[in-house]
Amino acid sequence: MADAARIRASAALVAHEARNGPGVAVVVSAQAGETDRLVGLAAEFGGNPQAGEPYDVIASSGEQVSCGLMSLALAELGLASRVWLGWRLPVRTDGVHGAARITDIAASELGAAIDGGEIAVAPGFQGVTEDNRVTTLGRGGTDTSAVALAAALDAERCDIFTDVDGVYTTDPRIEKRARRLDRISYEEMLEMASLGAKVLQTRSVELAMAKRVPVRVLSSFRAPGEANPGTVVCDEDEIMEKRIVSGIAYSRDEARVTLFSLPDTPTALAQVFTVLAGAGVSVDMIVRSQARSQHAANLSFTVGHADIDRAIDIMRAAQTDLGFADLEAQKELSKVSVIGVGMRSQAGVAQQMFAALAERGIAIDAVSTSEIKISALVPIDYTELAVRALHAAYGLD
Amino acid sequence: MADAARIRASAALVAHEARNGPGVAVVVSAQAGETDRLVGLAAEFGGNPQAGEPYDVIASSGEQVSCGLMSLALAELGLASRVWLGWRLPVRTDGVHGAARITDIAASELGAAIDGGEIAVAPGFQGVTEDNRVTTLGRGGTDTSAVALAAALDAERCDIFTDVDGVYTTDPRIEKRARRLDRISYEEMLEMASLGAKVLQTRSVELAMAKRVPVRVLSSFRAPGEANPGTVVCDEDEIMEKRIVSGIAYSRDEARVTLFSLPDTPTALAQVFTVLAGAGVSVDMIVRSQARSQHAANLSFTVGHADIDRAIDIMRAAQTDLGFADLEAQKELSKVSVIGVGMRSQAGVAQQMFAALAERGIAIDAVSTSEIKISALVPIDYTELAVRALHAAYGLD
Repeated sequence: MADAARIRASAALVAHEARNGPGVAVVVSAQAGETDRLVGLAAEFGGNPQAGEPYDVIASSGEQVSCGLMSLALAELGLASRVWLGWRLPVRTDGVHGAARITDIAASELGAAIDGGEIAVAPGFQGVTEDNRVTTLGRGGTDTSAVALAAALDAERCDIFTDVDGVYTTDPRIEKRARRLDRISYEEMLEMASLGAKVLQTRSVELAMAKRVPVRVLSSFRAPGEANPGTVVCDEDEIMEKRIVSGIAYSRDEARVTLFSLPDTPTALAQVFTVLAGAGVSVDMIVRSQARSQHAANLSFTVGHADIDRAIDIMRAAQTDLGFADLEAQKELSKVSVIGVGMRSQAGVAQQMFAALAERGIAIDAVSTSEIKISALVPIDYTELAVRALHAAYGLD
Repeated sequence: MADAARIRASAALVAHEARNGPGVAVVVSAQAGETDRLVGLAAEFGGNPQAGEPYDVIASSGEQVSCGLMSLALAELGLASRVWLGWRLPVRTDGVHGAARITDIAASELGAAIDGGEIAVAPGFQGVTEDNRVTTLGRGGTDTSAVALAAALDAERCDIFTDVDGVYTTDPRIEKRARRLDRISYEEMLEMASLGAKVLQTRSVELAMAKRVPVRVLSSFRAPGEANPGTVVCDEDEIMEKRIVSGIAYSRDEARVTLFSLPDTPTALAQVFTVLAGAGVSVDMIVRSQARSQHAANLSFTVGHADIDRAIDIMRAAQTDLGFADLEAQKELSKVSVIGVGMRSQAGVAQQMFAALAERGIAIDAVSTSEIKISALVPIDYTELAVRALHAAYGLD
């Protein structure tokens, strides 16, 4: 929710739903820039998400204000609503201030109010511990709050209004023929989300999957009543038209380190990542392969561009301890991924990928696979070409 | 609390108290300008104090943020604190959103936390109804919140840090010889406050009087440990050195209307003020005197400068109904008041006042008296002269 005009537009969408369907609960985010402003205020006093309740008391006020504004905007449209702050329901969380997890939402009273004809307006992002101390869910927690409330209300659906009109087969800025998906499974959405298709927060998708809440992603920029089908994120079983591959995701922020001839002991891998984690370097892909020597392995892992030089230094410093023979790094890489629940039962998906890339002369630096995803590292300059090649190869155009 | 520097300075004062005395609870206001900003946001959606809970949800967030900032500032000074928002204690109020009255504060848990060595940080201005809906106390409610919490905690004293260093015998801008009072009774403070010596909100003084909470007004601009005695507002019995007159107050915003020969019936007075109240004109002084005719009275009342023309029009329009013979008005008046609990038992206080004003050739337009106050209307240009004459006449220099 940005300015007054955007709040009014959102209220109009809520009003349309309320007038044309069953009861509605709306979960609001802070106004654009407001959380940054509040976090900045806290930072003036050394406050950060680790500072505990005082930080959360400050940070959560943005959503509180949005609740009041949304309720007033609904009143302008002649609709009765009621504000339900985090402490009021309550939205119970664990005690990890600044990054709390919702444990329970007591929504029966809110549900009764909705049944009585009131729109419920609740803030995203905030909750309270068992001991009634204020918590926040961490950045982007509003999607998660919405899904959790939908689950607590046993709601028919959780609509998430965003600045895009749905989930696409790939990034439309790269491939003009990208299509909006009517439906996508939770699992596929998780892979898409974590690969940088930042439509939904990963946590909210995980929660929706766990609670089996259908989530619809749709545009907040359409007028009420205008066609706005969005993309429904739901259980795999509810997707009639099965596809082998649902989408092509990519991430340009990849750099690879390979350690050659790492001792093949049970603890060697753990040691490497303990050293990296200790230095705050987070790792994405990990590929381990047998080395030529029988008692050694080659280990590749990727980190973000910002961390690569540090990762190399850390590994070199720990070379004696870790016992690897040699180190090689590649800085300018992209990760291109093919995602689809259908590939579980389908042979030849990987082969198709490698062929499509080879056909365009794109070198594959490393490959990793999961049940529903195949990722390949390619030179960064080939990102767009690789995305387009794969989009065509799997018939998504 | 204005900017970060002022919050730090306030935290240092709180820290000094905490280190040198028994437990401390601190009640904070919103940052300077913040409530205005929030009220402005609400106003964009037609929100005002009458809009109910949504307005209060918005307006109360300023104090919430201040709580977090104060707690962080105390942590910087190495002091443990805990935030207790209105819903948490809870601070119960009636259901008059935007102008609620506190009915009860459940402070036992907070009290136990203080006894355990934590500083309690609570927001002013906010509360919740029995039904747990958010309320605000109306502008200036933070003083009232502080006094109410002090009462609930059976606190030794409620310190109110302001931008002045205490209550003076009169306005030091007018009379350089004005002296800070060490102590003043609740009753006197009430008369001072309602006369424009806006050191404390009238409501907070009323509450302090009802609950017998000693309130100390002192400067927030002194360094911790620096002499800062302030003025203690307390029960009359606790003031050893009795004075007949404690202070001279004034208000420049007075205009008088007199109705001549109003019928001397039981309902006539009520009728006049019903008509005025119906038009939203608020009346300050009321003086009724017998008219020459046996069955008529002359009635004078004062209104603010902004209302005088309207008040005259309203009275003229209602002249036939009300049945008065004639109307006279005086626009440019001030009210000068002599206040002191001692005058209850002392004859000649009024005489002294009239003599002091007459000596300087100041015409008295009207007089009204209460048990502990004598007010005289004087021409506005004579305000300062009258204040100085009275300050000297009662030995306050």
